[in-house]
Amino acid sequence: MLIAHPQTQHFAEPLLLQSGKSIRAYDLTYETYGTLNADKSNAVLVCHALNASHHVAGVYENADPEVQEKSVGWWDNMIGPGKPVDTDHFFVIGVNNLGSCFGSTGPMHVNPDANPNTHPDTNTQQVYGADFPVVTVEDWVNAQALLMDKLGITTLAALMGGSLGGMQALSWTLQYPERVRHAVVIASAPNLTAENIAFNEVARRAIVTDPDFHAGNFYTHGVIPKRGLRIARMIGHITYLSDDVMNAKFGRQLKLSLVQSLGLSSANPEAASQADSYSYTTQDVEFQIESYLRHQGDKFAEYFDANTYLLITRALDYFDPARKFGGNLTQALKIAKAKFLLVSFTTDWRFSPSRSREMVKALLDNNRDVCYAEIDAPHGHDAFLLDDRRYTSIVRSYFGSILKEITLKVAS
Amino acid sequence: MLIAHPQTQHFAEPLLLQSGKSIRAYDLTYETYGTLNADKSNAVLVCHALNASHHVAGVYENADPEVQEKSVGWWDNMIGPGKPVDTDHFFVIGVNNLGSCFGSTGPMHVNPDANPNTHPDTNTQQVYGADFPVVTVEDWVNAQALLMDKLGITTLAALMGGSLGGMQALSWTLQYPERVRHAVVIASAPNLTAENIAFNEVARRAIVTDPDFHAGNFYTHGVIPKRGLRIARMIGHITYLSDDVMNAKFGRQLKLSLVQSLGLSSANPEAASQADSYSYTTQDVEFQIESYLRHQGDKFAEYFDANTYLLITRALDYFDPARKFGGNLTQALKIAKAKFLLVSFTTDWRFSPSRSREMVKALLDNNRDVCYAEIDAPHGHDAFLLDDRRYTSIVRSYFGSILKEITLKVAS
Repeated sequence: MLIAHPQTQHFAEPLLLQSGKSIRAYDLTYETYGTLNADKSNAVLVCHALNASHHVAGVYENADPEVQEKSVGWWDNMIGPGKPVDTDHFFVIGVNNLGSCFGSTGPMHVNPDANPNTHPDTNTQQVYGADFPVVTVEDWVNAQALLMDKLGITTLAALMGGSLGGMQALSWTLQYPERVRHAVVIASAPNLTAENIAFNEVARRAIVTDPDFHAGNFYTHGVIPKRGLRIARMIGHITYLSDDVMNAKFGRQLKLSLVQSLGLSSANPEAASQADSYSYTTQDVEFQIESYLRHQGDKFAEYFDANTYLLITRALDYFDPARKFGGNLTQALKIAKAKFLLVSFTTDWRFSPSRSREMVKALLDNNRDVCYAEIDAPHGHDAFLLDDRRYTSIVRSYFGSILKEITLKVAS
Repeated sequence: MLIAHPQTQHFAEPLLLQSGKSIRAYDLTYETYGTLNADKSNAVLVCHALNASHHVAGVYENADPEVQEKSVGWWDNMIGPGKPVDTDHFFVIGVNNLGSCFGSTGPMHVNPDANPNTHPDTNTQQVYGADFPVVTVEDWVNAQALLMDKLGITTLAALMGGSLGGMQALSWTLQYPERVRHAVVIASAPNLTAENIAFNEVARRAIVTDPDFHAGNFYTHGVIPKRGLRIARMIGHITYLSDDVMNAKFGRQLKLSLVQSLGLSSANPEAASQADSYSYTTQDVEFQIESYLRHQGDKFAEYFDANTYLLITRALDYFDPARKFGGNLTQALKIAKAKFLLVSFTTDWRFSPSRSREMVKALLDNNRDVCYAEIDAPHGHDAFLLDDRRYTSIVRSYFGSILKEITLKVAS
């Protein structure tokens, strides 16, 4: 089993952000898998989406095998020895973005510029909280590029990401066209639609209006805006799944009663039939889908930072490379030099196939080299994280061809 | 202009509810438009959806013409003199459902069975609050039928409703098959999908977990769970609109700045260009869609009751006539005797055309007389409330044919 080792790189130079603000000094947490080859031509950077991290593949070593197994990386089905992105051949880097709550500098870290007079009700060191500057996809890419510099990697064999991670991969090809050979952009979009922004905004309002949010400075109050985080996550989950998969998984099934969950239904059919009837409640769980969503919300509120949620959803909202070209994506992508693989999933209504096709068209308009696969998968947006042979085998083939390019180049 | 006059009918007999509970005594608020003919064969009952009421058509008389104009009924474009449902020929009744906050007995009314010891922190008369019993579509239909009895109407020329109103129209044909000649079921569904329930559940959680909800007894605390109501309404609005119409109306446009809203942009292009750039904020409004949703949420929280929201969304969740037939809708609709008009809208992803087609199929399986129109409208679920000639002209034709039936019957 692949054992992952998180590392941290400190950056002492300030990072100028798109907003005009800057971060004075910062850390980026990352992991690497596989070995960088002699000419440093086999590096693949994986960018994460909303609630993921640098922990892309493998597990963290632990004496307790159960604990170890649970620490598996979020794209471990895709990346590792012998996997579609084969770490026996590629040097894969997972990096945590600025503003995250999983290691890299974010709202929960100490703000070196904090004025102790701003929050006079505390005498601890000031964390950023809501003062963490707004970061964009472009800012993340700039920070990632500086990390690549530290690792001595000038050119990446591939950038790869799904959803918001795909936006970063795309942005790399525009910000550092010379440094990217291939971009693998999965279940992504060239910007958010009004509906996408709307869902983000409702989630943010739920967090911001939670009385425990305290304008983002809840840390000093010793509370967490869990109500808001729960609602945000529930909304998110609805948009990650397709209507079809929700119906297949949950449909209109009622919550399992104690009788049913103990498997007593066959022993006591009357009790089982009772358990199958409505309990007529407006506040308690009645349907299984409710139980599932509440569980997801509860879990998320335990580990995710509210300010990070605001920052990352805003990075999504703001991403729009065509904006400075009056909305013309073809113009915006003209600068890209990479070759592209794009993948979308038919039931993904968050980042629907039509959004990927917009990118494919804009790339073709510029005579770029593009592979595009539209997978007829039932799982909605979540499909990009799941195993589907049609999907994983395309990624495997594509990385196989990248490997051939690298090998030929070394041989020639 | 049609002037509407709300009326109230008191019912002294208890109403037994589907849950097994009952409401001891209650009022139903309703309005009527047009004249009931001699043989009482021209009555049309209009059922309302989530946030509407008995005030279907016309305006309330007011000395101030502006105030009067603003009081227009929610389906006034469809119902009135010379309109598709022509009140020069039909006697139309709009009724407010039990549990609502617009007149009929609901959570804000005094609970005759309240035990003053339950809420010892108040010495006012106890309102129902969260103790208002769960009401279902079937319960509403039973109450509506009792109102028809009071009005001396044995058989309705037509039942009519959109969305949740359509569910009531359908349910009438199953609960009182002899009393319904036609059912007009628009933008509706035979039950909610898991995704529909999921959206309702998130909205309910936002309300219930608002600290101002006080387990539904917020009235006695002198507060309103406005945060939760706002979130609920924002979620609702997203599901009422289509992705397309949101993009057409709002797209990625930024909130109008003061400069732009004052129309100064052409006079001062530099200021206008400034106003067109991001302000990099996570908590303030940046995009127009955010501004729109916040405004909708704020308005709603001013007038809608939180307990009513829970009750009405639960009535939606629970509606499922096929449930007692093991999910077989054909079996469930066998009892219906009415003729049907069903209408759906292509971009309605809340109650998509496929849900209407399920009903059409089940009715055809039973050799029922069905007209079905699928309108290629861009407006999503909201389309059922909007003017679209293809839609309104079908309703007009259908009611024209109902009128012919009535006239022929009188003549023969």
